[in-house]
Amino acid sequence: MNDPLAVIGRLRRTTDAIIGEADLRERLAAGRPLRIKYGVDLTAPDLHLGHAVNLWMMRQLQDLGHQVVFLLGDLTTRVGDPTGRSDTRPVLTPEEISANASSFLEQVSLVLRTEPSVFEVRRNSEWYDGMRIAELLGLFGQVTQAQLMSRDMFRARVEAGREIGVHELVYPVLQGYNSFAMRSDLTIVGSDQLFNEQLGRHFQQRLGMAPQVVITTTITPGLDGRAKQSKSLNNYIGLTDTPRDKFGKLMSIPDELVEPYAHVYTELPLETVAALAASAEAGGPAARDAKLRLAAAVVTRYHGAGTARAELQSFQQTFTHRTQPTNIPTVVLDHPVTTVLDLLAAVRPTETRSQLRRLIHQGAVTINNTRATDPTHPVDPATPLVIRSGPRTWHQIHPTP
Amino acid sequence: MNDPLAVIGRLRRTTDAIIGEADLRERLAAGRPLRIKYGVDLTAPDLHLGHAVNLWMMRQLQDLGHQVVFLLGDLTTRVGDPTGRSDTRPVLTPEEISANASSFLEQVSLVLRTEPSVFEVRRNSEWYDGMRIAELLGLFGQVTQAQLMSRDMFRARVEAGREIGVHELVYPVLQGYNSFAMRSDLTIVGSDQLFNEQLGRHFQQRLGMAPQVVITTTITPGLDGRAKQSKSLNNYIGLTDTPRDKFGKLMSIPDELVEPYAHVYTELPLETVAALAASAEAGGPAARDAKLRLAAAVVTRYHGAGTARAELQSFQQTFTHRTQPTNIPTVVLDHPVTTVLDLLAAVRPTETRSQLRRLIHQGAVTINNTRATDPTHPVDPATPLVIRSGPRTWHQIHPTP
Repeated sequence: MNDPLAVIGRLRRTTDAIIGEADLRERLAAGRPLRIKYGVDLTAPDLHLGHAVNLWMMRQLQDLGHQVVFLLGDLTTRVGDPTGRSDTRPVLTPEEISANASSFLEQVSLVLRTEPSVFEVRRNSEWYDGMRIAELLGLFGQVTQAQLMSRDMFRARVEAGREIGVHELVYPVLQGYNSFAMRSDLTIVGSDQLFNEQLGRHFQQRLGMAPQVVITTTITPGLDGRAKQSKSLNNYIGLTDTPRDKFGKLMSIPDELVEPYAHVYTELPLETVAALAASAEAGGPAARDAKLRLAAAVVTRYHGAGTARAELQSFQQTFTHRTQPTNIPTVVLDHPVTTVLDLLAAVRPTETRSQLRRLIHQGAVTINNTRATDPTHPVDPATPLVIRSGPRTWHQIHPTP
Repeated sequence: MNDPLAVIGRLRRTTDAIIGEADLRERLAAGRPLRIKYGVDLTAPDLHLGHAVNLWMMRQLQDLGHQVVFLLGDLTTRVGDPTGRSDTRPVLTPEEISANASSFLEQVSLVLRTEPSVFEVRRNSEWYDGMRIAELLGLFGQVTQAQLMSRDMFRARVEAGREIGVHELVYPVLQGYNSFAMRSDLTIVGSDQLFNEQLGRHFQQRLGMAPQVVITTTITPGLDGRAKQSKSLNNYIGLTDTPRDKFGKLMSIPDELVEPYAHVYTELPLETVAALAASAEAGGPAARDAKLRLAAAVVTRYHGAGTARAELQSFQQTFTHRTQPTNIPTVVLDHPVTTVLDLLAAVRPTETRSQLRRLIHQGAVTINNTRATDPTHPVDPATPLVIRSGPRTWHQIHPTP
């Protein structure tokens, strides 16, 4: 389909390891479209820039004519992937699973091409719903307890005295068999999935199929420098974050993350990445400029150069000059509001009143440029109000007639 | 149905432990027929006196109107019960499984009543063939890896560096769930099955059913005094052994087994058991007489008093007087026989020629009271021959016309 060395060379930028590299060269050289397994658990349909690293690699391969098989793990979601989890996951209803699947597809389409020639959607219930217990037990017979327990994550749990449900123990078997059932040639995963995908190779070989190539990718730390990006830590940039949020979050990272982020989250030439890294190391205004460049590059990748330019300007205006930004969202009140707390609740409806009270007490809230520190202080919504809550959150209130 | 204390008291003779004794009393007092789970793996359909201890207890309950549910583990046989096994079991074909099931039924009917009011046959494929993978995984979610691995047998394997297939690891889950699916009130098992049956209680409770009572029974050593009775050690008395074999094997046990065997394999009054134990301890002719009494009691239990009397006489005649017994089976030769080995092969057709050669070399074979030690020695089947191979095996050859 194209020069194997060139293709692999380009993937290498964000590659940690390739299991079966010779096979990959051979298959690329053979010229037929590869089937690229992209399997997801449907519990938490929030993709972040870390996940997108893999998606962009798949996108490169799609652009060369290869096929991404997007595997919705609807059956395995009912089991719960124990990866990185200390507790058993909640069981989802079929409706939740279906809603999460739609959400996933929407997010994935921000990076991947979705025309049928290079994109196929499958569900693992397709083979597991029709599989008989005896057949599953036959698969179990091809794996030993010790093999499964050798997984880092399980060992860590045992050491921590935490329990492993048997459904969790066998999860890798199910994930592994998927590779056989969907005839995967290649999968691109975080290194925490290596074990499960190695089992995929195991089953493919046992069942007479050439084993898939596994590429594991570079894992970048979260915004706070922690190794794991997770929803509960709220330390990542979501694929569906607004351009403004993406920009702002990138401006908030520690200086030492500029280099790894620029390396894996952008396509900036490596010389540029090196230059940004040097600026970040210098600190002060140079580091700040490096982050502006990084933030603009990431926003460009997802939202285009025009949006990136606008966000750059807006950010500079807001934070450099501390002035009110030009494009503040307007909120129309649909119920009476008499106190500062009520007003804040009206513009930030997803937060609890105790969270909002905290914001006010922290001095993060200003109304018409005057700090409001008493949640019970009266407000008059009949006059135009501009309310700011936190450094980058502004709302204007449409006066009640 | 009958006085709980009396029923339990009678069972107690061969009981090791009762899990849920208060429940058992209550259920017996309630008067409805109990469903007694008797589950078997179909790999090795050879029942011995040890198994029959449990069967006789069930028989007592049948006589009171309770129902034995004979559960053929046809699905789980395809998995392989790892109990006491160091290696993975062979997978059986459906034909073998079906043949083994018939053989089991035949043996079981030597002890149990099989009229429908007190005997029901089920197969666990009834619920496992229709079960979906997701449902099985749901069951797995109610058990932890550590729970399963706490099983003695698994721990022993790990310590010995032996592997545990995942299909073996989950076997107890399947066996346990059976108790729920068949609505078991009570099961009577060897203590090596306690773990699996405790899981049965676990699932019944989790799934909203009153948990079964588990009675574990006294395990008696094999004929050679070894703890485990097994086919490969050939150290047990099979339920289908002829009365003569049963009698002879019991006469061969070490003196110290007289007491435990009389206790669990017969219904002799406990005072009689004590008297036999004292005789056995005295050794010599007293011990021998104790064994005769034991052997007669066991043969009586399975084949009736008349047969037992005949075997007693035959045994005494053969071994006390070393004379030829009166009722020797006659073999009609259907093919030419020219050597001692050929002749032996004709009367013992199930053994290999090398086994038979060994018998001859050991001096165990006599022809017309003359020891034959050369397998190639010519014989003349045109004359009447009496061939003895081993202490209790006699055949006469019908002369070829």
